[in-house]
Amino acid sequence: MYEITFKIEGGDDAVIFASHGENILELARKANVAIDAPCSGNGSCGKCRVRLLGGEVYSAITRHINDYEYFNGWRLACVSKVSGNAKIFVPDIASAYKNRMQVSDLSSPREIEIFDSLQKEMKAAGLDFGNGYSTFIVEIAPPTLDDTMPDNERLTRTVAARMGKSDVHIRYSLLKKLPNLLRDNNYRLRCLLYGEGESVRILDLFPAEGRTPICGLAIDVGTTTVSALLADLETGKILAKGSTGNGQIRYGADVINRIIEQQKDGGVERLRYAVVHESLLPVIHKMCDDAGVAPERIGCVTLAGNTTMNHLLLGVNANYLRMEPYVPAFFEIAPIFTREVGIDIAPGAKMFVAPNIGSYVGGDITAGTLASMIWNSPELSLLVDLGTNGEIVFGNSEFLMACACSAGPAFEGGDIRCGMRATDGAIEACSIDRETMEPYLTVIGGGKPVGLCGSGIIDVIAELFATGIIDGRGKFARQGERVVYDEYGTGRYILSFAGRTATGREIYINETDIDNFIRTKGAIFSAIMTLLGPLGFAPEDIDRVLVAGGIGSGINVRNAIRIGMFPSLPESKYRYIGNTSLAGAYAMLISDKAARRLSELARGITYVELSTQPGYMDSFIAACFLPHTDASLFPDTDAREEA
Amino acid sequence: MYEITFKIEGGDDAVIFASHGENILELARKANVAIDAPCSGNGSCGKCRVRLLGGEVYSAITRHINDYEYFNGWRLACVSKVSGNAKIFVPDIASAYKNRMQVSDLSSPREIEIFDSLQKEMKAAGLDFGNGYSTFIVEIAPPTLDDTMPDNERLTRTVAARMGKSDVHIRYSLLKKLPNLLRDNNYRLRCLLYGEGESVRILDLFPAEGRTPICGLAIDVGTTTVSALLADLETGKILAKGSTGNGQIRYGADVINRIIEQQKDGGVERLRYAVVHESLLPVIHKMCDDAGVAPERIGCVTLAGNTTMNHLLLGVNANYLRMEPYVPAFFEIAPIFTREVGIDIAPGAKMFVAPNIGSYVGGDITAGTLASMIWNSPELSLLVDLGTNGEIVFGNSEFLMACACSAGPAFEGGDIRCGMRATDGAIEACSIDRETMEPYLTVIGGGKPVGLCGSGIIDVIAELFATGIIDGRGKFARQGERVVYDEYGTGRYILSFAGRTATGREIYINETDIDNFIRTKGAIFSAIMTLLGPLGFAPEDIDRVLVAGGIGSGINVRNAIRIGMFPSLPESKYRYIGNTSLAGAYAMLISDKAARRLSELARGITYVELSTQPGYMDSFIAACFLPHTDASLFPDTDAREEA
Repeated sequence: MYEITFKIEGGDDAVIFASHGENILELARKANVAIDAPCSGNGSCGKCRVRLLGGEVYSAITRHINDYEYFNGWRLACVSKVSGNAKIFVPDIASAYKNRMQVSDLSSPREIEIFDSLQKEMKAAGLDFGNGYSTFIVEIAPPTLDDTMPDNERLTRTVAARMGKSDVHIRYSLLKKLPNLLRDNNYRLRCLLYGEGESVRILDLFPAEGRTPICGLAIDVGTTTVSALLADLETGKILAKGSTGNGQIRYGADVINRIIEQQKDGGVERLRYAVVHESLLPVIHKMCDDAGVAPERIGCVTLAGNTTMNHLLLGVNANYLRMEPYVPAFFEIAPIFTREVGIDIAPGAKMFVAPNIGSYVGGDITAGTLASMIWNSPELSLLVDLGTNGEIVFGNSEFLMACACSAGPAFEGGDIRCGMRATDGAIEACSIDRETMEPYLTVIGGGKPVGLCGSGIIDVIAELFATGIIDGRGKFARQGERVVYDEYGTGRYILSFAGRTATGREIYINETDIDNFIRTKGAIFSAIMTLLGPLGFAPEDIDRVLVAGGIGSGINVRNAIRIGMFPSLPESKYRYIGNTSLAGAYAMLISDKAARRLSELARGITYVELSTQPGYMDSFIAACFLPHTDASLFPDTDAREEA
Repeated sequence: MYEITFKIEGGDDAVIFASHGENILELARKANVAIDAPCSGNGSCGKCRVRLLGGEVYSAITRHINDYEYFNGWRLACVSKVSGNAKIFVPDIASAYKNRMQVSDLSSPREIEIFDSLQKEMKAAGLDFGNGYSTFIVEIAPPTLDDTMPDNERLTRTVAARMGKSDVHIRYSLLKKLPNLLRDNNYRLRCLLYGEGESVRILDLFPAEGRTPICGLAIDVGTTTVSALLADLETGKILAKGSTGNGQIRYGADVINRIIEQQKDGGVERLRYAVVHESLLPVIHKMCDDAGVAPERIGCVTLAGNTTMNHLLLGVNANYLRMEPYVPAFFEIAPIFTREVGIDIAPGAKMFVAPNIGSYVGGDITAGTLASMIWNSPELSLLVDLGTNGEIVFGNSEFLMACACSAGPAFEGGDIRCGMRATDGAIEACSIDRETMEPYLTVIGGGKPVGLCGSGIIDVIAELFATGIIDGRGKFARQGERVVYDEYGTGRYILSFAGRTATGREIYINETDIDNFIRTKGAIFSAIMTLLGPLGFAPEDIDRVLVAGGIGSGINVRNAIRIGMFPSLPESKYRYIGNTSLAGAYAMLISDKAARRLSELARGITYVELSTQPGYMDSFIAACFLPHTDASLFPDTDAREEA
C-alpha cells in the first residue's frame, strides 16, 4: 500500500492508502476529494488537472498536458495511476467551478423582468395565485367540568365551524405540543392551514401573536446548475433566490456519464448525496438565512428537473434510461415526504415533482412548457431549451410534441477548452474584422476576459465562418497571426493572447471545439426538423421561437441562424424567455391551478424519441456543416457570399 | 460532589456523581439504574429496597425496614439522601419484576380457549375476517422500443387491469428497487397489496417465487403489562404471542404516579422510551424471532391501551388528564406512521389506536367492549375489567355507559406487601378453617408459595371475614398463632411461615393491605352502583356479568360477592372472558368490519366521570366495609352469620 496525500487548494489535506495501479481520479472520489471531471474520467475533456508535488504517479500521455506543464508536475488525474507514495496538489474545485457553474439566477434586472412577465402571462391566462395555504387565528372555548372534549377535537371543531368546513385534521406530531400550547396561550392560537375542498389540514400551531410565515421552495435541478426560489405561500412573495452548481458535476458533465457512474458500487447513493447535500441543502440554508426564515417553516417543495436528474435526486436507478429501449422508472410520482430524500424541513413537508414525459424530456421541460404559455395560443410555436441538453417542444393550443437532443454541455462552457458560464469575465459577444481577422470582444462585467460562454461561442463560430477563416466543415481555411497549429496539427484561433487575459492564459477556440460545437448545433437543428417533418410543417410555418435555458439572454439569434443552429426566420419571431423550468416550478408552488394545468399538459405532450426516429441520423449528419449541407434551408444567410 | 456507585445485581456497576442531599431513587433514575418503585417514591409501597455496602447515606425511618434489616444495610431508596460517597447494592429489577409482571398471555389452554371463543362470537355476529391485505403474482409485458411506458406505470396498470381496480399506487420507496427487481425477475413479481374500494396500494414487491408474509401486530398496552400477537394478515393466523412488563413501572405502578413523573424535565420522552424501547420493541423482536419473520414484514399495528398509556406511548403530555377538568389531548387519532413513535418495522407501516372515550376509559375498554359482544344482545350486561385500574361498562344493544375507578394495582399484586401476579408460586385460592384458623392454600404450579395474587387476596379476605378473624372494618377481631402485631401495632395474618415459603420470607396480609383492598373493592362496587342508578336499574336487573382483565381466570366469584366487590347475583350470571383488550385489538387487525364497528361503538358509549358524579363519594364510603354498610344489598351472603 502507498500513501497518497491530496493537498487541496484552500482546504485540508486528505490522505488515503492505495494499491499499485489505482486510478488517481477514482481514488480522489473515494477520499471525497472534489476534482473537476466533466467527462467523468474518459480522458476527453482535460479538466481534471492535478499537480504532482512529490513522490510518483504513472500517467499516460495526453494532448491536454504539454511538455512544459508535464515538466512542472501537471497531470490529468483520470489517466494517472498509483506507482508509489505521492503528494498531489488539487486546484480548488470551487474556483474551478466558479466560472462554469455560475448561473443567471434572476440576479440581473433583465432576468427578473423576463421572469415577472412570464408570471403575469400565466396569471392572465387564469392560472392565478391560490394554493390552499393560509393562516387563521382561532379562539377556543376552554374546557369545563361539563365540557371535557379532548384538546384535538376542541381545536378541529372550532376551526371547522369558523371556516365552514366539514373535515379538519390535525397531524399526530402537533398533538405533542397542543396541550401546553393551548393552556399557555389562553386557548388562542395561530393555525397554519392547508385546505383542499371541504378538507383542511392543520400544518402547524403558534401563539396568536407574531407572524410566522408558511414558505415554499421552487427548485430547478439542472444537470449543471441548481436554482431555487423561497416564497411565502400565503402571499406568493419571493423571499430569497439562490443557485449553485450541481454537486454531481464531478461525476460527469452530462447525464450519460452520471448514469454510468451511478451503476458503480454505491453510485446511486453517491449521486443522490452529491445533489441533495452539496447543492440543494446549502442553497436552501443560504436562502433561509437571507430571508430570516427557519427551514422548519418550509412546508412544500416543487421540483423541476430532467428525467435523469429526477431519478438521481430520488435515488432511483437511472440505468435503464440509457439502455435500449430507454425506459425510465417513472414519469409521474405522487408527492413524497421531503425527509424521505434527505431534505429535512417542516415535519410532513411534501415535494411535488413536475412530471417527465420521456426518457430525455423531463419535468424541467413540462414545467417550462407551462411557463412558456405556448399551449395557450393558436400560434405555431417552437420552444427551444438550451442547457446541458437541448430540448425542443413544438405545437400550439391544439397539439404539442417534444424531443431532446444531446446538445452536450457546450452552451454552458463544457466540451470547449476555454468555455465558461455566462458570468463576469465571459466573452459573450464577438465580431471579427474581415480584413485583419482581429476580434472585437464583449466581456461580461467589462474587465479582462476569462473564457468563452455559450452566446460567445455562437458569435465566434459565426464570425470565423463569415470571414472565411474556417470553412463549412469547421477547418481553418485562412492563415494569420491568430491562427496557430499545435504539435498534433490541430488549428486554433486566438481570441485573446495570454498577456491580455484575466488568467494569464491564452483564450482560444480550436478545431476540436468547433467540431464539438458543430455537432451540437447540428443536433438542435435536425431535432427541430424531425419534429416538424411528420406533421408536414416546414420552418416557415413557425410563428415564433421561444429560447429558454442556461444559454442566457446574450444569445445573438442572427448568428445562431447564420451557423445553421436555428431555422432561417425573421429575428422578430425569436424571443428569449429565461429559466422557464424555475418559472414553471414557482407557478406550481403558488398556484394550484397552474399545478393542475401542468399535469394535464404533461399528459398531452407527444414524446418523440429521436434515436429511434427513422431519418434522424441522416438529418443530423446533413446538419453537421456550416450552415447546412442543404444551403437552400438558409437562403438569407449565405455567410460565405457575404464574406 | 460525592461518588455514588450502584452495584447492580447480575449487571455492571453504574457510577454517578451527586451533591449532598440528592435523593437516591432520583439519582438511580438519572443513572438509568432500574429500581422497583410502584408508588413512584412517596414512601408508601416499601418496594424500592437497596442495600448500603459501604460509605454513607442519610435515610428517614420507615416502617418498611425493620431494625435487623437496617443494621444489615437495607434502606428504601426513596427516603434516602446522599451524605457522602456510597456503594449501593441494587437487587435485580428483572427478578423483582418477574413475579409482579408475568402475565396470562394466552399461554394456558384455558386462556386460549376463551380467546378463541370470543373471536368465534365476533365472527358469528358478522365481524368476519377481511382486511384488505393480499398478495398477487403479476406478470408484466417487458418494454419494447414501441412501448416505453415507465416501470411504475407498467406495474400499476397491469395490477389495475388484472384486479379490475381503477386506482393502483406504488410508494416512492419501492421505486428504488423496482427497476432492477423487474429485470432480474423477467418481469414477474409478487406484490403485497392493500386494497380499499377501488384503490389499491402496493406495499412491497418480491420475486414471484417464495412466500413472504404480510404481518400485523395487535398490542394491548396495560399499565402493568404489555401483551401482543403477531398475525399473518392474509390468513389471520396467529404466528407468535408475547408479553412483558410495562417498562414504565419503575416510574410508578399506577397512572397517576406516571403522569406526575412525566411532568418532570424530560419526563414525557423518558416514559415514551420506557414503554417503546424496553417493552414493545423487545416483545416485537422476540415474536419475530419465534415466528421466523423479519420486523420489516410487519405492515400494520393495532394498539389498545388506556387513555394515559396512549398519551405516554405517543409522547403526548398527559398532565391535564389528572387536573380538573380532566381533559385528554385526544380520544381518537388518525392512523400514524409507526416510525413516528420509534417502532421501526415495514416502511410506511401504520398504527391504528383504539379510540378512548374518557380521561380514564381508554382504547383498551372500547376494544374490550367490542370483544365482549355486549353490544350485540338485548341482555343487560356488565363488563368489569379488573387490571391496574377497574373499568366498568354497562348496557346492551340499545345503550352503553362506562366509567373507571382507580382500583389501584391490588389485583396485580401492587399495594399489597406480599402481592404478586397470577403466576407460578402465587397463592391463587385459600380457605381458612373456622376453628383452628389454619389456612388451606392453592399455589399455582404446586410448589412452595412465593406471594399472593389477585384471586388469592379476594379469597383470603373473604375467609378472614367469614371466620370472624377480621371484622367489617378489616381489623383483627380474633387472636391466634397466625395473628401477629408489629411494633406499630399493625396486625397481620400469616399465610405461610418463613420456613415454608419459596423465598424464605414470611407470607402474610396485614391491616394496611386489607384496608387498601377494601378501598379497591369498595371503588368497584360503588362504581357499578353509580352506573346503574341514574337509569333506575338495580343489581337484580343485570342479566350477566363479564369479568375481564389481569385478575385472571382464578377469581372466585362467590368470595368476590361475599366481600361486597361484586353485586349479589347467582354465580351462573358471571363469566370470566380474559384479556378482552388484546382480543379486540386482534379483531381490529384482521377484520375491517370489526375496526369499523369499534369506531361506531366508541362514539356510542356514554362516559361517566365518577369524580364529578354527585353521590359517588358517599356511595364509595358506604362500600368501604365488609361486605357493605347496607347489608340488605348482600342478603344471601351474610358471611358473619355463617361464621
